Amino acid sequence: MSVELTPIGSLHSPFSQKFGIPRQSAGLTDIPGYITLTPPYDDLNGFRGIDAFSHLWIVFQFHQSIEQTQSYSPLIRPPRLGGNDKMGVFASRSSFRPNNIGLSLVKFVKIERVLGQTRLHISGVDCLSGTPVLDIKPYVAYADSQPNAVSGYAKEQPQATLSVTFSPDLPAQTEEMLALMTQVISLDPRPAYHQRPEYQALHPDKIYQLRLYDFEIGFIVEDNGKAKVMTIN
Amino acid sequence: MSVELTPIGSLHSPFSQKFGIPRQSAGLTDIPGYITLTPPYDDLNGFRGIDAFSHLWIVFQFHQSIEQTQSYSPLIRPPRLGGNDKMGVFASRSSFRPNNIGLSLVKFVKIERVLGQTRLHISGVDCLSGTPVLDIKPYVAYADSQPNAVSGYAKEQPQATLSVTFSPDLPAQTEEMLALMTQVISLDPRPAYHQRPEYQALHPDKIYQLRLYDFEIGFIVEDNGKAKVMTIN
Repeated sequence: MSVELTPIGSLHSPFSQKFGIPRQSAGLTDIPGYITLTPPYDDLNGFRGIDAFSHLWIVFQFHQSIEQTQSYSPLIRPPRLGGNDKMGVFASRSSFRPNNIGLSLVKFVKIERVLGQTRLHISGVDCLSGTPVLDIKPYVAYADSQPNAVSGYAKEQPQATLSVTFSPDLPAQTEEMLALMTQVISLDPRPAYHQRPEYQALHPDKIYQLRLYDFEIGFIVEDNGKAKVMTIN
Repeated sequence: MSVELTPIGSLHSPFSQKFGIPRQSAGLTDIPGYITLTPPYDDLNGFRGIDAFSHLWIVFQFHQSIEQTQSYSPLIRPPRLGGNDKMGVFASRSSFRPNNIGLSLVKFVKIERVLGQTRLHISGVDCLSGTPVLDIKPYVAYADSQPNAVSGYAKEQPQATLSVTFSPDLPAQTEEMLALMTQVISLDPRPAYHQRPEYQALHPDKIYQLRLYDFEIGFIVEDNGKAKVMTIN
């Protein structure tokens, strides 16, 4: 008994690779994105009244995690537990899960017809660019908001832990791009074991590569909690 | 480009038909249910750590709405607008939507092995019994709770509007069953146009049939906002 679904559209975001994507947006509610609706779902009637909602749920497919989840692995290592502890996949929001369904809360920005397409603009995006979208639902605060819910090992929003500077030799960037790089890198996207002082002492000049839009961004992390962007190509 | 999913389990609830199901649980956080996990998803490891979360998201398929949505209808009539106004399906939580994906917030109760099955017990259920479950995710309050979100035409939780009494001739019922009938009927599950005084004046003795578990419940509504359960079979 399988269920066959058809993506209703495709999500576009600054994140052209998984490395660096803030988990559950990590409070970065300004990160812009848009969904291009596939016909027949591009009919604006399907969105009548959506501008009366401030927030939307995006139900999507973690399309880059499908291959790794062909056989069922019940345990995953949540990144926020430092990669040491294993948790049940259904006690996590990991992308490595049966059916690879993702759920993302975003802010509604606007919906428009542009270049013959219907685009739903959103912000607070934490999905890979190119993500297939399965559904869009309005956020209903009285039902969906449970501020006192107890959330196990995911009690607090990830905090910015690195202060970010830029090498003076870099090509000029827009303010939006500078802000985006600063926000994403400040959350320290490195794997947990790279964040340990021992690792850092052994690899002081390691350059981490982050891809945002079409830019390859290289940054280093200094041992005093500072990150420096060295290259942008 | 289609996406093929496999249900991970099946949800069991008191609701054996659509009529009467409180939308978004309508605050009825005690309505009990459980999910029976299908192998291999019945491995308890997949749920390790889930008891540290008070609330869960259930991603499911509105399996009884699939036929009616074979062709795309962008507009629906939200019941809470009295059936008069049309809204975009993506501005609604209607079951008549592309891909028929439902999203329900429930409380975690417990997980257990019983009769060779793994059962995840939950409460605050608003799904039909027999619903195919596609995913289970922990509720992460810092990300999922937006108490100040603006929710268009769905600003307030549906309120109980009928006071419910029981005919003295009924067979004895458990306290749980009496509470369940009272809660569900008090929300007035009748179609909006049946709730108008004109309609009620023309059909004063109309018996509404509600199915909960294996019981057929017949109730009438009197013109002073009182409902009376007449039959339970």
